[in-house]
Amino acid sequence: MDPTSPQVACFEAGIKFGSLYHQFAGTPVSPDSADSLARAMEEAIENQPHCVAVTVSVREEPLRAAIDESGADYTELTGRFLDVSMTIDYEGCVVETSMAMEDGYPLMQVDSVVNPSQ
Amino acid sequence: MDPTSPQVACFEAGIKFGSLYHQFAGTPVSPDSADSLARAMEEAIENQPHCVAVTVSVREEPLRAAIDESGADYTELTGRFLDVSMTIDYEGCVVETSMAMEDGYPLMQVDSVVNPSQ
Amino acid sequence: MDPTSPQVACFEAGIKFGSLYHQFAGTPVSPDSADSLARAMEEAIENQPHCVAVTVSVREEPLRAAIDESGADYTELTGRFLDVSMTIDYEGCVVETSMAMEDGYPLMQVDSVVNPSQ
Amino acid sequence: MDPTSPQVACFEAGIKFGSLYHQFAGTPVSPDSADSLARAMEEAIENQPHCVAVTVSVREEPLRAAIDESGADYTELTGRFLDVSMTIDYEGCVVETSMAMEDGYPLMQVDSVVNPSQ
Repeated sequence: MDPTSPQVACFEAGIKFGSLYHQFAGTPVSPDSADSLARAMEEAIENQPHCVAVTVSVREEPLRAAIDESGADYTELTGRFLDVSMTIDYEGCVVETSMAMEDGYPLMQVDSVVNPSQ
Repeated sequence: MDPTSPQVACFEAGIKFGSLYHQFAGTPVSPDSADSLARAMEEAIENQPHCVAVTVSVREEPLRAAIDESGADYTELTGRFLDVSMTIDYEGCVVETSMAMEDGYPLMQVDSVVNPSQ
Repeated sequence: MDPTSPQVACFEAGIKFGSLYHQFAGTPVSPDSADSLARAMEEAIENQPHCVAVTVSVREEPLRAAIDESGADYTELTGRFLDVSMTIDYEGCVVETSMAMEDGYPLMQVDSVVNPSQ
Repeated sequence: MDPTSPQVACFEAGIKFGSLYHQFAGTPVSPDSADSLARAMEEAIENQPHCVAVTVSVREEPLRAAIDESGADYTELTGRFLDVSMTIDYEGCVVETSMAMEDGYPLMQVDSVVNPSQ
């Protein structure tokens, strides 16, 4: 069957999450540079179609722990340093999504879907 | 409302598309190296959860045209050189997706959603 | 032969250029988001060893032209939208490098090498 | 001072290393997909100017250990899973480079520089 609008809204939300993650994973990051990276991630992904809002914060505690363990002054961005939430609006269907750590892996998930036609 | 299984299946499909595109966009590519890149893209994304199959082919004609125009021996991978299709299976909901050029932009879309509970 | 300090300084400079380019190429970018991306690129690469300073600016004219041509509201970051300069200091050898367009390709080059032992 | 040919050769070698690392870091990888990724990395970077040969191998032991620890079937590519060597030839100056783990960080280094004019 053809996809419904809420299904396409969820597809669009997934695109943004995959884009954000794989565009920026591996970026050199330190506590001092975390804020500029988070802002760039938000504004870059908000350019994409149907993307209403992106909020990125870098979790300072695991970032500092990884840097201390490595002995260097920075590390590479990966999912365990990130909290992300996004709002997608596709033809009035609003999808809220977020990324959180679960079992040591960054889990991207759909938090809610609002379909105005129901 | 909480998402349905078909909606999560579409979200998962979107993640794979965004991942594939933004992990590999910018890779140096030529007609000789296109096949190894396409295979690596397929196998890399098939590692991700709920991803049954990925097919990537590099469109040789626009690739050669871009290289000829640039005067170099290679160019950077971007969406207009790619044909991609993917099958995602989330809890029995099977989503078929593809990427094709439309108005000069690579458009990622959901082709069909099969929900076994209906 | 083993590399000299100026040669290692140039190698380090090259690493930073390749990192900057291939980490961020493909990022969705528009005139409104160009500044935050440029700041993030600078601060991310300045984390890397021996990197004294990075200056990135997004060239607004070709960026606007590419967006106008595409019909979308944004495009993907690539070298023709970037002006970059960097200063690397390896054991007192200071290397100045820059990226500029030449024949339609972004050319990364070493502008000067100062070796204090000479 | 203007750079010498051996210095430019080292700069070019650095570009290739930074490109390889930041293009592919973060790619989903498993023991089954490691070979196709390694081949794609080699052939992609060999497209770049002055790059004679690239050899990439994925270190299976740390890759399996990381996957076992995570509980997933794959992980993200990072430097500790990679052995890389490259040969660069710029105007007859041949530079051999490699990447190896040192103190838990992937260290990129120049192994030798051969300058035919000396």
